[in-house]
Amino acid sequence: MSLRSSPDEKRMGHVQLSASTWKYRHEIVGIVTKVGSKVEKFKVGDKVGVGYIIDSCRSCQNCTENLESYCPQHIPTCGAKYRDGITYGGYSDSIVVDEHFIVHIPDGLPLEVVAVGAVEARVCLVQRMQHSEVVLPLTLKWLDKPGLHIGVVGLGGLGHMAVKFAKAFGANVTVISTSPNKEKEAIEHLGADSFLISQDQAKMQATMGTLDGIIDTVSADHPLLPLIGLLKSHGKLVMVGAPMKPMELHVFPLLLGRKMIVGSFIGGMKGTSRYD
Amino acid sequence: MSLRSSPDEKRMGHVQLSASTWKYRHEIVGIVTKVGSKVEKFKVGDKVGVGYIIDSCRSCQNCTENLESYCPQHIPTCGAKYRDGITYGGYSDSIVVDEHFIVHIPDGLPLEVVAVGAVEARVCLVQRMQHSEVVLPLTLKWLDKPGLHIGVVGLGGLGHMAVKFAKAFGANVTVISTSPNKEKEAIEHLGADSFLISQDQAKMQATMGTLDGIIDTVSADHPLLPLIGLLKSHGKLVMVGAPMKPMELHVFPLLLGRKMIVGSFIGGMKGTSRYD
Repeated sequence: MSLRSSPDEKRMGHVQLSASTWKYRHEIVGIVTKVGSKVEKFKVGDKVGVGYIIDSCRSCQNCTENLESYCPQHIPTCGAKYRDGITYGGYSDSIVVDEHFIVHIPDGLPLEVVAVGAVEARVCLVQRMQHSEVVLPLTLKWLDKPGLHIGVVGLGGLGHMAVKFAKAFGANVTVISTSPNKEKEAIEHLGADSFLISQDQAKMQATMGTLDGIIDTVSADHPLLPLIGLLKSHGKLVMVGAPMKPMELHVFPLLLGRKMIVGSFIGGMKGTSRYD
Repeated sequence: MSLRSSPDEKRMGHVQLSASTWKYRHEIVGIVTKVGSKVEKFKVGDKVGVGYIIDSCRSCQNCTENLESYCPQHIPTCGAKYRDGITYGGYSDSIVVDEHFIVHIPDGLPLEVVAVGAVEARVCLVQRMQHSEVVLPLTLKWLDKPGLHIGVVGLGGLGHMAVKFAKAFGANVTVISTSPNKEKEAIEHLGADSFLISQDQAKMQATMGTLDGIIDTVSADHPLLPLIGLLKSHGKLVMVGAPMKPMELHVFPLLLGRKMIVGSFIGGMKGTSRYD
């Protein structure tokens, strides 16, 4: 059985990829097996990747500003209703995608490395997707000034990247975690400046009001109030994790400090492809 | 008994006001009865007003940027521990305040009008306080571009001012309320462009994704999710009301639209005194 994911193969701007080593449901890599007659960026045999979305309306303000991921009509690569059925993303044997939503994978990178990658060394496609997810909040005039004090909550895939990019932007980085055994990794491997156990009331108290921004990568339920307390006035709490259950929001601390909670999704294709 | 509120009368930069018609606990007006030897802006007999705060550290970044209200050491006019006791604000017979935290009331305005004012016609001091509270979010590069579509939740004192200022900034204004009987006032008296009952599911659905920003003035418990849904992507929900109970925050809708929730407190003295 060929489980085909995605749109109208007759569209001339589309590219068909065959599954190679893709492992992630919505961030997949493969080899181009067919191209439509109007495809310009790709040829059969190219190593390519597809991120979280495979289509958008292409005409709304977000689409024209290279922020396709915020288009209300964007189509996720996996599990979405699309014009010819459901998208299966990395679960399908082949996928057909408009070339606009495909990025090149450099020849020198084995697909196995790109697709699998160790969590802390995710590279290329997955990194690019995460890069755009983590970097966009940092670069959107929010948190990109050198010398800022940035907190990173959670040290999973996104947290790792957040620490690395925040350090690269010149921030003083504090990793905030529930797991004491991640301290060594945070400091020695990723280069964070300090490590804060969120249950350590004394240290949390001592850090109150010191952070310019926090990138919260945690998707499990967790309290926001202590994080808001760690922010300076006018500080920004950027949510890139997606807890399923509603969180408790205490409004008064936001008011008193003119603090901000903002969500950030993946980047658009221009940001994602910036190293093509 | 003379119930005296506030600090060290010996400080030479301070002004003593006697209660005249003050009615609001933390936004009061009165007549200057004494001035310290270094007071420059006021003389005995002046009509003056004091807002929500009577002191701050005067040296932190917020204080030096005319945002004293965000100084972590600001002292509320009422109910706060201060150097010589508790501040009683509008409950005291007289109050002594550093001149930095006092504004002039124009001679032509009777104090009764200034202090009491009809809710929808609050003027001068109370208006100034509300003005700075409502206008700051509008002017802080968030919501001040003409042509934006701004929602105002709640039509109490702050809501009234929010509608008027948003209209003055050239916004298309939608009042969002639970009370159908406020429609006439919103449209005919305050000049709002449209009125939305928050329980009207059909109209709420039709308005989804259309607002650039919302100023939420409601301090009672209310759901945030529908308001976040009304915002366009990158839209801003500015909280100026202060619900006491934690609210439910659904994070995923924030992420998907790069939406923002931000609190806004009163303005600093420069903003508050701008019409002096």
